[in-house]
Amino acid sequence: MQSTMQDVPLTVTRILAHGALVHGGATVTTWTGDGEPLRRSFREVAERSVQLAHALRDELGVTGDQRIATLMWNNSDHLEAYLAIPSMGAVLHTLNLRLPVEQLVFIVNHAADRVVLVNGSLLPLLAPLLPHLPTVEHVIVSGPGDRSALEGCRPRVHEYEELIAGRPVSGFDWPQLDERQAAALCYTSGTTGEPKGVLYSHRSVYLHAMEVNAASAFGLTPADTCLPVVPMFHVNAWGLPHAAFMAGTSLLMPDRFLQPAPLADMIATERPTVSAGVPTIWAGLLAELDARPRDLSSLRTVISGGSAAPPAMMRGFHERHGVRIVQAWGMTETSPLGSVAYPPAGLSEEEEWPYRVTQGRLPSSVEARLAGPGGEILPWDGTSAGELEVRGPWIAGAYYGGAAGEPVRPEDKFSPDGWLRTGDVGTITADGFLTLTDRAKDVIKSGGEWISSVELENHLMAHPDVAEAAVVAVPDEKWGERPLATVVLKDGKDADYAALRAFLGERVARWQLPERWAVVVTVPKTSVGKFDKKVLRKQYADGELEVTVLA
Amino acid sequence: MQSTMQDVPLTVTRILAHGALVHGGATVTTWTGDGEPLRRSFREVAERSVQLAHALRDELGVTGDQRIATLMWNNSDHLEAYLAIPSMGAVLHTLNLRLPVEQLVFIVNHAADRVVLVNGSLLPLLAPLLPHLPTVEHVIVSGPGDRSALEGCRPRVHEYEELIAGRPVSGFDWPQLDERQAAALCYTSGTTGEPKGVLYSHRSVYLHAMEVNAASAFGLTPADTCLPVVPMFHVNAWGLPHAAFMAGTSLLMPDRFLQPAPLADMIATERPTVSAGVPTIWAGLLAELDARPRDLSSLRTVISGGSAAPPAMMRGFHERHGVRIVQAWGMTETSPLGSVAYPPAGLSEEEEWPYRVTQGRLPSSVEARLAGPGGEILPWDGTSAGELEVRGPWIAGAYYGGAAGEPVRPEDKFSPDGWLRTGDVGTITADGFLTLTDRAKDVIKSGGEWISSVELENHLMAHPDVAEAAVVAVPDEKWGERPLATVVLKDGKDADYAALRAFLGERVARWQLPERWAVVVTVPKTSVGKFDKKVLRKQYADGELEVTVLA
Repeated sequence: MQSTMQDVPLTVTRILAHGALVHGGATVTTWTGDGEPLRRSFREVAERSVQLAHALRDELGVTGDQRIATLMWNNSDHLEAYLAIPSMGAVLHTLNLRLPVEQLVFIVNHAADRVVLVNGSLLPLLAPLLPHLPTVEHVIVSGPGDRSALEGCRPRVHEYEELIAGRPVSGFDWPQLDERQAAALCYTSGTTGEPKGVLYSHRSVYLHAMEVNAASAFGLTPADTCLPVVPMFHVNAWGLPHAAFMAGTSLLMPDRFLQPAPLADMIATERPTVSAGVPTIWAGLLAELDARPRDLSSLRTVISGGSAAPPAMMRGFHERHGVRIVQAWGMTETSPLGSVAYPPAGLSEEEEWPYRVTQGRLPSSVEARLAGPGGEILPWDGTSAGELEVRGPWIAGAYYGGAAGEPVRPEDKFSPDGWLRTGDVGTITADGFLTLTDRAKDVIKSGGEWISSVELENHLMAHPDVAEAAVVAVPDEKWGERPLATVVLKDGKDADYAALRAFLGERVARWQLPERWAVVVTVPKTSVGKFDKKVLRKQYADGELEVTVLA
Repeated sequence: MQSTMQDVPLTVTRILAHGALVHGGATVTTWTGDGEPLRRSFREVAERSVQLAHALRDELGVTGDQRIATLMWNNSDHLEAYLAIPSMGAVLHTLNLRLPVEQLVFIVNHAADRVVLVNGSLLPLLAPLLPHLPTVEHVIVSGPGDRSALEGCRPRVHEYEELIAGRPVSGFDWPQLDERQAAALCYTSGTTGEPKGVLYSHRSVYLHAMEVNAASAFGLTPADTCLPVVPMFHVNAWGLPHAAFMAGTSLLMPDRFLQPAPLADMIATERPTVSAGVPTIWAGLLAELDARPRDLSSLRTVISGGSAAPPAMMRGFHERHGVRIVQAWGMTETSPLGSVAYPPAGLSEEEEWPYRVTQGRLPSSVEARLAGPGGEILPWDGTSAGELEVRGPWIAGAYYGGAAGEPVRPEDKFSPDGWLRTGDVGTITADGFLTLTDRAKDVIKSGGEWISSVELENHLMAHPDVAEAAVVAVPDEKWGERPLATVVLKDGKDADYAALRAFLGERVARWQLPERWAVVVTVPKTSVGKFDKKVLRKQYADGELEVTVLA
């Protein structure tokens, strides 16, 4: 029996219209460094979005679901692109300006972007790539920055302000969209292989924005001002721009001023109530505040995600600056809102900490299960560790991946029944709190059990002789895999593997203790400073490490 | 271009699974009057829901989308029905126990309910109707109350606890549902004509629950306890049971103890943080509290909807008991969440009042427009009054109406392009605040303009000679319609129509002043105490009123 409710699609077009009509007086403030901030009302942003849509269609001939890329900081022009491009049926492709240039070239070509919107300050990055981007016909430049790098380039160059000036601020003939139609495209910057595209739908963007606005998530309201420090080229700034326009929440946009001092200044001056970013940003801000305090009392919630927030940093904010850091977990493939770590009610501050350092609880729209080493589904008992698999309307079911853009479902990323394999290993308690401990590729599969390399590393690094330690899986005839412990010793210390193993033996189960040990001069690292375990495994396989095997 | 996100339906089944798994420790407390409250965890409620589903399918043979009625108070058994019935693909049909019995008989027969779940205390209402309910094969009785009224009745009678006892608490083979499939059925108790069914979908229930949990709506979180005073047979208790199970919000269920004294007691004892109900309930509670104060400090928000909350009552709660009443607007056809009246940020308490007495702002999923007397769309300027029309994924697009259950779309209820005509007349400000002033059927359409009968009545009743006043539209050759003012005079007062008109003339525009006047002994009223303007119009048409026409 079909219901008799209206069949109205969930679209970005609706978010645009709603923000303009009901919350037209909310503001988007873009930081400009030393100058006066740029302020636009939601009504102005919406009108300029309509002008942008007119320009893209009437002047640049954008039709259908063509991809329009942005290479931009967090600012109100970028928000206009966020609203106009999906609403006109095109696909917003946000380019991560921190990607290696060869990956940038790859993804622009893979997406076949026809237009690139770029901030003037980023032209030194874009201009040299243009000869390698044959699909790009138009470059639209917005904001300050020397334009000379574009002289003589092949694509047509437009100034954003000139392009939209004088065009109608209403009356765009928005297409009737199917909510499952693509709205936005983000490529993951995987450490291995080529970047893979996640193609968000209008439905997923809309539902995700609703969840961001849930009181048990980020809880945006018209009384809030939100400062998205997380870049708009990182998983759509965690959905905050669309969520804020939906909720009527004013936005404070940091543009390119992401250093600790200007962030502290803009918070003290503009008084946002909510902010969101990665732990590195907050660690830098904490050091700045400790050195030169500012008034951060406007902040009711600061969301930290992307990697685990160090508890000492969370405590530092809380105890020295009265700012509450809330951990959240997600990834590009999850839009990204996966879980948020609010403690249960009625606990003392100290009792709250064990909950606050978890990844938190999942919303009803994100279904979770833990898959054990053999693929078996594990109980939620707080101790059974498995790979987190998730399912839901804002979770990727495939990548926009093949050469012709067809969906691809690598089996290490998607289960046979279609759940996303997150690559994260952890536990879930009986009351739904998720704790992630390892990347699946870093756990050691030993005789049907998993050994956490991160746990062994943390214990080893607590030993007074050890400067750094990395544990990797190596092949073992009997157990499938066993841990190899590599350690960097502190100056003047000698390798005493038996003593290190005894030290570990007091902290983990006996069957988890490594037999294979090696001293290394330094642990190889990736470009972002993470342990590069691929290199260690190859060094081991190639016999380059001097390995001692303990009986 | 189709996105590559997972295609996961939005269903009540997901709400059930989520509440059980992630928030299994939240509680449902049912008030029992003088005894100890009945407490069940979400996990127990979910397990009992599964047992109920097993019983309905295995014992009673419920299949497909059969309709299962409930005639129950707000209690945890009713919540189990809310979760089990839609999840198994059947349709939850909540019966309004305050309907006239002939309407109850009509709607049970119209829906072809196969099973009725009933509270023992309501058997005196149900039992006499059973001979007129041929489709009902089973009656399931839950909770205290004399069962003797059911002796010898035709349907099979089951005790709820006996029926579910011993059945599996997990492993029910929930069907894969299309989110547009029907989940629940409510009939409107329209003042004219037969009741009309609104057939909610899984999609509409799920999206509506998400919106209830938005921080700018009711904002339920796991830290809250919600007391739905609004009955579960009134528009699904405004969506609160499903929203609470989705958010992990504990519920305090008042059962049949809806009188002011037990409500005050249960709030003081169980300390809910959020409550919701109609103004009459809050007015009664306020009088009780003024006479015998209780500690209501746990309440952060009290939602009032269903009709306009008197400002004096809102102020009384605020000033004498520290409780914040928040107005919301909705109707059966809107699931019901239409708008919520939070004032903008940064205002003083006094500055907030003009916003708090409006119907508030609409969420992004509810699109609104105002249609003027000629159907033209009016601006949002705070003064242009039109009929509110709405559109959205939890707004009805038709009634479950025809004899064979086919959708019906009466043209006074749905516009040609499918929007719901709410029958409410009002204005919207440029910043999105809706104020409803009249029912569309009560405004006078005079020469292409609307005259508010409610406004004229309020002014007339402020005159010292007038006890009551009702203004109705009567046909007029020149203007189409003109107002007829009928007044009930205070004892010993004589009719001085010219003086009354002069009094009005100081308060409204000249063209709105009634020419036709009549004194009546009493204003005819409906069963719920509202002015019955149909009767007045008929009395006028039949020449039963002694009308004076002023030049």
